[in-house]
Amino acid sequence: MPRQERLPRPIGKGGSWVKPCLNPSLVRTRDLEAYLDIAAQAGYTAVEADVGAVVALVRAQGMRAVRKLFRDRGIELGSFGLPVDVHAEEAVFRAGLERLPEAAAVAAELGARSACTWLWPSVDELPVPYASRLAVRFRRCAEVLAACGLRLGLEFVGPHHLRGRAYPFVYTMADTLAYIDGIGAPNIGLLLDSYHWYTTEATAEDIRRIPVHRIAHVHVNDTDRPPAEAVDNERLLPGEGRIPLAAFFTALADIGYAGPVSIEVLRKEPFAEPDLEVARRALAGLRRVLAAV
Amino acid sequence: MPRQERLPRPIGKGGSWVKPCLNPSLVRTRDLEAYLDIAAQAGYTAVEADVGAVVALVRAQGMRAVRKLFRDRGIELGSFGLPVDVHAEEAVFRAGLERLPEAAAVAAELGARSACTWLWPSVDELPVPYASRLAVRFRRCAEVLAACGLRLGLEFVGPHHLRGRAYPFVYTMADTLAYIDGIGAPNIGLLLDSYHWYTTEATAEDIRRIPVHRIAHVHVNDTDRPPAEAVDNERLLPGEGRIPLAAFFTALADIGYAGPVSIEVLRKEPFAEPDLEVARRALAGLRRVLAAV
Amino acid sequence: MPRQERLPRPIGKGGSWVKPCLNPSLVRTRDLEAYLDIAAQAGYTAVEADVGAVVALVRAQGMRAVRKLFRDRGIELGSFGLPVDVHAEEAVFRAGLERLPEAAAVAAELGARSACTWLWPSVDELPVPYASRLAVRFRRCAEVLAACGLRLGLEFVGPHHLRGRAYPFVYTMADTLAYIDGIGAPNIGLLLDSYHWYTTEATAEDIRRIPVHRIAHVHVNDTDRPPAEAVDNERLLPGEGRIPLAAFFTALADIGYAGPVSIEVLRKEPFAEPDLEVARRALAGLRRVLAAV
Amino acid sequence: MPRQERLPRPIGKGGSWVKPCLNPSLVRTRDLEAYLDIAAQAGYTAVEADVGAVVALVRAQGMRAVRKLFRDRGIELGSFGLPVDVHAEEAVFRAGLERLPEAAAVAAELGARSACTWLWPSVDELPVPYASRLAVRFRRCAEVLAACGLRLGLEFVGPHHLRGRAYPFVYTMADTLAYIDGIGAPNIGLLLDSYHWYTTEATAEDIRRIPVHRIAHVHVNDTDRPPAEAVDNERLLPGEGRIPLAAFFTALADIGYAGPVSIEVLRKEPFAEPDLEVARRALAGLRRVLAAV
Repeated sequence: MPRQERLPRPIGKGGSWVKPCLNPSLVRTRDLEAYLDIAAQAGYTAVEADVGAVVALVRAQGMRAVRKLFRDRGIELGSFGLPVDVHAEEAVFRAGLERLPEAAAVAAELGARSACTWLWPSVDELPVPYASRLAVRFRRCAEVLAACGLRLGLEFVGPHHLRGRAYPFVYTMADTLAYIDGIGAPNIGLLLDSYHWYTTEATAEDIRRIPVHRIAHVHVNDTDRPPAEAVDNERLLPGEGRIPLAAFFTALADIGYAGPVSIEVLRKEPFAEPDLEVARRALAGLRRVLAAV
Repeated sequence: MPRQERLPRPIGKGGSWVKPCLNPSLVRTRDLEAYLDIAAQAGYTAVEADVGAVVALVRAQGMRAVRKLFRDRGIELGSFGLPVDVHAEEAVFRAGLERLPEAAAVAAELGARSACTWLWPSVDELPVPYASRLAVRFRRCAEVLAACGLRLGLEFVGPHHLRGRAYPFVYTMADTLAYIDGIGAPNIGLLLDSYHWYTTEATAEDIRRIPVHRIAHVHVNDTDRPPAEAVDNERLLPGEGRIPLAAFFTALADIGYAGPVSIEVLRKEPFAEPDLEVARRALAGLRRVLAAV
Repeated sequence: MPRQERLPRPIGKGGSWVKPCLNPSLVRTRDLEAYLDIAAQAGYTAVEADVGAVVALVRAQGMRAVRKLFRDRGIELGSFGLPVDVHAEEAVFRAGLERLPEAAAVAAELGARSACTWLWPSVDELPVPYASRLAVRFRRCAEVLAACGLRLGLEFVGPHHLRGRAYPFVYTMADTLAYIDGIGAPNIGLLLDSYHWYTTEATAEDIRRIPVHRIAHVHVNDTDRPPAEAVDNERLLPGEGRIPLAAFFTALADIGYAGPVSIEVLRKEPFAEPDLEVARRALAGLRRVLAAV
Repeated sequence: MPRQERLPRPIGKGGSWVKPCLNPSLVRTRDLEAYLDIAAQAGYTAVEADVGAVVALVRAQGMRAVRKLFRDRGIELGSFGLPVDVHAEEAVFRAGLERLPEAAAVAAELGARSACTWLWPSVDELPVPYASRLAVRFRRCAEVLAACGLRLGLEFVGPHHLRGRAYPFVYTMADTLAYIDGIGAPNIGLLLDSYHWYTTEATAEDIRRIPVHRIAHVHVNDTDRPPAEAVDNERLLPGEGRIPLAAFFTALADIGYAGPVSIEVLRKEPFAEPDLEVARRALAGLRRVLAAV
């Protein structure tokens, strides 16, 4: 049997070893079905998506229908934003926490491996009490997620313009891993974003020092600015800037990472082109980068 | 763009909502690459595999090569047997536990969501000390697995001929879930096997009472005997016996299960047909059953 | 300064190294103040007491008054029965659990180190699900107790006439310690009762194998019957029977136990003598036994 | 029996409700037996002591002899400094952690309820990674201590002259409790020291807001300086300065605290008077303060 027949979804050179995810930041649509259509048409096999919209659809149409929506398009849920506001007042946090089990169960059945959120690089509150209050909340979320075989991914945020508050929080890989250790839940991992890796001037060697199982999720994007000048919401598509993404992915390949890579390109304004076009251009950019690995 | 192009891997009617896994019990080959070839040629997108063989190959050829082996064939690792002998003496258990982090990290990158093991339905030892010693070991394994976003799946075993030891252990869904609660690790779930569901005379309603996130993995198979007479290692391919598999999967669909379904057909002798033929017949049987859901 | 003046509470030979506790089983009175008076008059420095009565008094008169009641008599709370019915239906268990933090905080301030409960030696329910449901509850209680620096002591029960239910649970030191390990809460320990040590025909050597920190509390009492014939609620005062208590306490001394020893003498009928007289006779008996160590 | 006889150790008015502990900071002697003699002669019933010296004596003379040393003098171990250097490099920390089980078991049998250590009010390291690394270590220590029914007490340190490092850590009751919550071990509590309470300008009302079970241990001492000028190692005996100790203890009494109160008076030079005299003066000072409650 010719390989062509066995492998109906041809995968570009070098692109087979991670799972590129369409990210909501790339598109204008907020309709889940339209979003999945775009993902499938552009050639993705996974998406990052708003789990709130997914749960709403499950409630309206049932899990079977939603599962079919994903499977008919060959799409899995790669990861999703933690649907709990860990920065909010206690009542808001608790309300989110109570909704988490349903979201986690739905997301896990659609293929998700992690729910992710991020950390401020600097804070105005006293840093240790602030970190401690967050740790309590992360631990609670992580325990709910563990029951569905999901991890909680914590993303450090690197851009220098966000470091100006009164005290530093964590914004390097090493410090974020130390913070995760301090929280003490076994299923919390790192969300490694190329933008933050670049703006903290981390190296490929730094990535190679991380045990692969500690990386829960990966974001990719680009910038044409030097590390200290890159602005968080002025990102470029992967391969359209100067971040050494080949080195980034080579290091990830070296440690054995084979999970989702979500193309998160935060911007002030949406892209001008049609959603499908952006989705394709993003994936093509990622594939070019991966081909160099 | 015609759907045909977007969905290069055509999925049979009703078959899209779970992930059929090829299971080593179906084939004679013990060569990993040959096994993956059979899986791909027969139309599977996932396999259950011996993680020891996978790790050995990673050590020999590197993670990139092994990942490529899976990805080139469009195959994920659906689940794997816990590579730790929890029934052995302490030194053997510990040696296995020390090797678990490597196996878990590799397996997670290849797509696995769970490592699974099983429980005797009856034991000669005093049951509570026995269950307690196992609980300590399961908890340790579960903590290692959690760090990779994996769950530990525990399988209850139903055949009546295995219930004859001095004391009952656990062999129903409810009792196994109670035992899992007693262990107290958030990421331990149930491995639900149609054979054990049938031989314990559980109902579809019993499945509907389980929160979907508590099911870590599913095995499917069949028998032409009444529940009390089915022998553990004389199983049939799904759809070739009398287990009401349509009811089984309808209940799983109703609670939203969308994960791997491994066709585990334990037998005294391997199948007489060539491996590829058995793998195809098994998948065809599962698809017919799923089509009735 | 002569030692006589420095040590105003003369302690009998050999009696200084454990803390004898008056136990409610010795007396008829259920009035806390009268009970403390008897304890002090009979020469005890610690009591086991119904924590519900203590909490009720704290609510009525305030913690200062209750503390004064104990301190004025030189009495500490040595231990107390876990005020949560772990065998009851879920709602009753939960109600008890909700009251536990208050009881634990009060008891800890009055000197308690542990709350104790006991395990049936045999059960009619399937033993592993039964043990598992209890484990969940013990873990919850233990976590509440830990916050006050208290341990949960679990007592195995030895009398043969209680072993007749359908399945064995745990009734030896080794099996109880295995069960405690299985529960997985660091602050659960053993309540070692001389009656159960004797009726399970354990040896001094068995005690010597226990790390001292695993013993949370000790009960002492006696019987004039052989091990297989001793009835649980027909106990004698320590030293008035045939239990080799000198060997029992020598082993405890050897491993370094120096905590409370509560004289628990369960009987069908209360003692005929006045409470104070029984309390004195019990302590004298214990001191004679300890003098032989 | 007249009360005088039942209560051989007369306790001053108001002094009965806490357990005054002699603290090594008050005396010059480093000999354990001499220290216990001083404690007993001065009228203490508890001491804080170097657990390393206690363990050394247990190893040399056996637990029975050491227990007798304490009991013959009517002295309990009130608390002890955590004998693990949580600030050291990993190998040193681990070596200490390995010795902790023995120390904890010995200390618990001698009456201790907690092991205590302290937190810098400011640090030069990045505060969140620093706090996280400590949290991991505190959690490990706390788990070992829990097995002996001990708590880990964390002391916040208030003097302003120690706040000058690059970043604030924690130095108020509320922030320390938040940090403790963040660590996530149930048996970690607060060590409340009157010096730090005063120098952080906390109020009696602040104490009244703390659930009593969260206080693991109490230190008392005094200063004649204003809060911002009090120097950490220039402390006075309780009642010899201006700290509102009556308010401090009234608040502790109001929430029901009845545990050890160790008179820790850090100084550049030891007291000039003989040890026994200082020990007596300290206890007399504490009793005067307590009499005002």
